[in-house]
Parts: sequence; C-alpha cells; structure tokens
Amino acid sequence: MTTPLSGYGHHFGIGNIPFGVASHAENTRPTCVTRYGDSVIFLSKLADLSTHKDLKAALDQSSLNNFAAFAKPSQLTVRKHIQDAIRRDETLSALPKDAVKHISEVTMHLPVEVGDFTDFSCSHHHVQNAAEAMTGKRSTPPAFFNMPIGYAGRCSSIDVSGTPVYRPLGQHWKEKPMDSEIVFGPCEKMDYELELGCIIGRPLLRNARVLAEDAEEHIFGYVLINDWSARDIQALEMIPLGPLNGKNAGTTMSPWIITTDALESFKTAPPKRVQQQVSYLKQSGNKAINTQLQVDIASPNNGRTPQTMCVSNSSCMYWNLSQCVAHQAIGGCGLRTGDLLSTGTVSGEGDSEHGCLLEFMKASSTPPRGYLQDGETVTFSGYCGEGVGFGECVATLLPAKEL
Amino acid sequence: MTTPLSGYGHHFGIGNIPFGVASHAENTRPTCVTRYGDSVIFLSKLADLSTHKDLKAALDQSSLNNFAAFAKPSQLTVRKHIQDAIRRDETLSALPKDAVKHISEVTMHLPVEVGDFTDFSCSHHHVQNAAEAMTGKRSTPPAFFNMPIGYAGRCSSIDVSGTPVYRPLGQHWKEKPMDSEIVFGPCEKMDYELELGCIIGRPLLRNARVLAEDAEEHIFGYVLINDWSARDIQALEMIPLGPLNGKNAGTTMSPWIITTDALESFKTAPPKRVQQQVSYLKQSGNKAINTQLQVDIASPNNGRTPQTMCVSNSSCMYWNLSQCVAHQAIGGCGLRTGDLLSTGTVSGEGDSEHGCLLEFMKASSTPPRGYLQDGETVTFSGYCGEGVGFGECVATLLPAKEL
Repeated sequence: MTTPLSGYGHHFGIGNIPFGVASHAENTRPTCVTRYGDSVIFLSKLADLSTHKDLKAALDQSSLNNFAAFAKPSQLTVRKHIQDAIRRDETLSALPKDAVKHISEVTMHLPVEVGDFTDFSCSHHHVQNAAEAMTGKRSTPPAFFNMPIGYAGRCSSIDVSGTPVYRPLGQHWKEKPMDSEIVFGPCEKMDYELELGCIIGRPLLRNARVLAEDAEEHIFGYVLINDWSARDIQALEMIPLGPLNGKNAGTTMSPWIITTDALESFKTAPPKRVQQQVSYLKQSGNKAINTQLQVDIASPNNGRTPQTMCVSNSSCMYWNLSQCVAHQAIGGCGLRTGDLLSTGTVSGEGDSEHGCLLEFMKASSTPPRGYLQDGETVTFSGYCGEGVGFGECVATLLPAKEL
Repeated sequence: MTTPLSGYGHHFGIGNIPFGVASHAENTRPTCVTRYGDSVIFLSKLADLSTHKDLKAALDQSSLNNFAAFAKPSQLTVRKHIQDAIRRDETLSALPKDAVKHISEVTMHLPVEVGDFTDFSCSHHHVQNAAEAMTGKRSTPPAFFNMPIGYAGRCSSIDVSGTPVYRPLGQHWKEKPMDSEIVFGPCEKMDYELELGCIIGRPLLRNARVLAEDAEEHIFGYVLINDWSARDIQALEMIPLGPLNGKNAGTTMSPWIITTDALESFKTAPPKRVQQQVSYLKQSGNKAINTQLQVDIASPNNGRTPQTMCVSNSSCMYWNLSQCVAHQAIGGCGLRTGDLLSTGTVSGEGDSEHGCLLEFMKASSTPPRGYLQDGETVTFSGYCGEGVGFGECVATLLPAKEL
C-alpha cells in the first residue's frame, strides 16, 4: 500500500494520519486532506466524519488554520475516524469514491497560512561548526545555554515542498568578509538548512505565558523546513541586526503536518543540561523528538544520482520546539494559530551529521563539495519508525532571475 | 474645525485625507474611514463615492488591505471625492448623517493586517549613538552605507495607537553585559523608538524587483511607529541573530495612514551620499520626506505634564523607505499588500534629536532621565505643514503581568 522513501520504511501508516492541503483535477479548490500510504483522503468529502458543523466547515478550507485551532479532542475524533476506517478496510474502498485519490493525482499546497515565523538556533553542534566556518574559531553565543536564540523570518516566501527557489541577488563581499570589496550580483554561496518546524494550534493570548513542560498543548504538529540561506548576502548584512535578505529567497515546508499524537511514542532523552535552567524552560522526562533526518542532493552534473550529505537526528538538539514556544511566549507577543517556529539547522556531532553546507567549510573538515549549483535538487526526509515519517521536503535551485 | 496637536498646526486639512479603520456605538463593525479636521467619514456610507463595485466593497472591510491594493488612480478618485465634498461645504452637512462622526465618538482600529514587518536602520546618528551607549565607542556597521540594514519584526504584537503595552518578562544580564549574572524577570530598561513606517499598497511578485527610484509606486502610505524595545533583553539575545523578544512586547502604529499623494509636496533633499550607490538604491532629486517628529513623555510622577524628549525630522535619515522597499525586494521575497517597512529610530545630530532613550545613555551625554517607568505614556507626533500631519501615536506602559 505504501511507497518506502529514501531507504526507510513506510512513512504514512495507521500510526501517522498527517494533515495537509491538496487539490486535484476534478476538484481544483484546495481543501484539507490526510494520507494513508499512497492514498490521499479529502476530509470534507467524508459525510460521517463528525456531527460538529464547524469542524466539517474547517476541513473544507484551503488552509489547516481553522482545524488547527480546534481543541485536541476534536482533532482526535478525525484521527480516530480515519484509523477506524483503515482498520475496517485497508483499501479504503468503503469511503466515498471522490474522497480518495492516489498521491500521484493530487497537488499539495502550503498546509497553513503563517502569520509569524521564528527560526531558532537549537543545535550546539551547528552553532560551533558555523562559528568555526565563519570566523575560524569554535565559539558559542553568550546566551546559548540560557535560552533558544532566534530571529524572525519572512512569511511571504514560505513555499510548499516542490516549489523551486530562485538564486537571490544581493550585495556581498567579493572575497574575504570585512576585508574585500562589496559587490552586487547573484548569490555565490547558496546553502540549505535542515530544520524541524512546528505549527501552532491552540493560540496563546498576548502576555499569556506557557511553561515548556506544557507548551506542546499549543503545537498542532511538526514539519520539515528548508531554510535556504545565501551565505554571502547573510555575512554582510547580519551585523548587528541578524539575517534578512540572506534568508528571504525561500523557505520550503514539507506538505504533511505530523501531529503531536503521531509523534508521542517517538520521544527520547534530550542532551544533558550544561547548567541550571530558568523555570519556564524546564522539562522533565523524555521530551526530545526522535526523528532521523536525511539530506540528499541530486545534481544535473552526475545524472541526478542523489548524494547523501547528512544523516542527523532531531533529538541531538539542546533545545526542543516546546522550549522555543515557551521562550517566544515569555516576551508577551502571543502566538497565533498557524505560526511557524523552527529549530535552525539540525546538526549532530560528526562530519556526516552537518545539516548545512556551511559547516563543511570549517578548517577542520575537508569539504566534499562546494555550495549549491543551479539546477541541483535538495531533498530532506524524516523518519521516526513504525509507519510514522515526515515524507520529503524537496526543492530545486533555479538560476537568478535577471533584473 | 480641527484641533491643533502638540503645538503644531492642523494635521487633517483638505490636503491630507488620510485613511484609517474605525467603529462607533451604532456601528460596531470596523470599516474604512477618512478624516477632515475632527470629523471622521465612514466611506462605505457614501452612496455616490464610486461606481466601482469592488472599490465600494473594499471600503466596507475591517482593514484597508483591499483598498490599498487598488491602483493609485482608483484611490485618487476617493481622495478627490472627499476633497470636492469639503470644497462644496466645509461642514460636511451634505454628506449622509450616519457617514460623519466626531473623532471623540469613534474607536480607531489597526488600519491594516500586516503579513510581514521589517524594521530597518536608516539613521546614521542613531546607529552611532546606540553603538556608543552600548559599547562605549561610536561605530558604524560595515554595510551601513551600502544598504539599509534591517531585521524582521513580529506581526502578532502590532497594535493601534492607544493600546497599552505591558512590560515584558525575559532573561537579561543583571548588571554589565557579558560580565555579570544572567537573571530572569521584568525588563528593567524599557525604551521607545521613534520611527516612520510605510504600508505596501500594490504588491510585488516573488523575485520581481523594483528600483528605489520607482518604489513609492508600491507604497500606499506612511504611519508613525513606536518600536518598543526592552534594551536588557535585547542586549543578551541579539548575539549573533539580532533582536527577538526584546522587540516583541508591542509595536504601536498610528491610526491614520498618510498617503503618498498627501506627502508629495513635503519632500526635501536627503543627506549627502558618503559613497557611490548600487544601481537599485539610486535616487534622483528630493526624495526624503520632510516631517517634523516629536516625542513627549507624560509621567504619573509629575502630574502627567508632557516632557518633550525629542524633536527630530525624517529627512535626516541616510536611507528612506523607498530605498528600503527596493532593498527588501532585491532578495526575491516579494511584497504583499499591508506589509510594514519601518525606518528604525529617527534621530538627528543633536542631543535634542535622540529618537530613543538608549541614545541618552552614551558617555558623552548627561541623561535627562532613566528608562521608562510603569504608567508613563509615550506620545509621538508628526507634522509636515499646511494641514498635513500624522496626528499622534500614543501608548502607556503598564507593569509586567505576573506569571
């Protein structure tokens, strides 16, 4: 029934039941869907799904925002309804014919409207490797072990997986940062960043706070994120206010939101705490998400044979997304349904666990390749086990559009 | 007919015709309005305003986004219609009775839904003063004269003038940055930032670019912005990714959007260029907006007598908002109607022209006061001349909400 991805097992088994937004030839208006194996189920076509009128109306929308805002028990009735249907008949033949399409027949759309996007810096390995690559010295930002450091990202350029990204234009140092001419033209150091993101479900009012221990109650689910990075543009612009145009050309989101329920049994211990933690960031027990993440690059230069650049795991991060949610909230800005919070590059300790190309540029590595070339396709995948995975997050880099 | 503000002349004369969103006791649903003197005109109540059905529908919305997306000639017909009505009868008695309310009878709302907010750093005086206050040394970021440096801000916490701001909680250094304990609690260094913002009208597609020379075609109008800043939270978090929670407690926007047409006759020469400029940022002629900006603080400690902290002018900035629009676009992210781009603190050369309290903390100044106290009200005003002004952008700082 299902197609294995990237050498892993099945991603969309009965334990997953992810949510997305799709359209197809006879139904061009995007609406909310789930997936079992290679079958995409259009939820608003299921007459007996729920007696809750508002819930049915939410699933007929072109984004998951309304559904994500529902209380978890209502969301669970939908999950259970689909799981019961699968248990009764794995071929789904009892469902209305127009409710089930093969994945190859549908077009996936961005699953949510994102009102605010914050990208954090959760992996200590990434921070140290990036510092070494950029400054020649391994270092850790002063507040790294006190809180998840982050910056606000651009919402207008978040795309669903499959959408190409154009190489951006911008100003950058011609050669050595701080010590060469500043020139203008297409980015010469285009990079990806392997990230895990979460989508806010139940909103949090302005000036309301939530403890990291309880923050997953506000998370609807998780996605893979490629935070495309123009390293040369970023290097020039980020002193002292952080990245802007270097991160704005595109952010790719995987089409399927994997719910907190699906991931509940894939939790593990986080890395050991380096110091005492402030109350709102404390967590007990196994709160790190145990998802194996992989990066492959297919290049037109070698017949598009995928080259695996990284096999990492989201559990290696010092901070998890519940802690990011608690930290974002403590400042009083509130959280809205559909908000995206992302981990920053997920990198592990070894050279085979670098979640971006920048990390390979550090003096202690021998880079296996340079930055991205036009026409290359970057594919992320995430797999938890037992029929639960993220599928893929894919995008091809296209040449800069001329002025 | 009009009430002078802050010692300046009339702000809302026949040459202004700003746009906003308001409701009142008999019409609690917010809709689009304009203002002449102290009269607020509910535009959807004007039967003969336009024969364009979509334009009328846009003005009946609870945000100006739809109207702002219209082509300038359509927007100009509305402006001209109101100006003609004023010329015929300055008391507006010929307009339908339910279309005109006194400003004291209406509630103003946030005029637009903001999809992305970028805050730039346009004033060289601010940059140097802030550097001196924070590091003891006057300095300029490496790319300052090459492009407007900026960071993405938070959209969920943008409020209309009059909405109070709560002092945020956060982690910060107890005393000296980099050299003291990190503690958690209410911000101890709460500040305002006097800014001019622009609202995008006609959108710009992804990967489309616009020259600074032409970028005002995409600007619907201008507003005053208070970018509330928690200096201690910001100082800890901003290495290396820039500000996040230090800027997220609230951003206050003035209720009236002053159109590009109203400001057309208030342009002046920008500061002299320090170096050759890249093609997309070049401008000819007088492109700086000549608006006198003022900051007043009213404190419960002195009977709320306003103390003028700053008289500055938006024309002193090295970069203007058309250049910010062009720079934002060059990275390929596109611009959506309702996007907010802001200048960062507008500061002039002298000590009476500091647009935020941080600048007074530099060693070469004797600070006239400390950071903001709970209960203090910060009022910005902006005046161009001849019946054209921004009115006020006001907010009161309230004590931190307990956890």
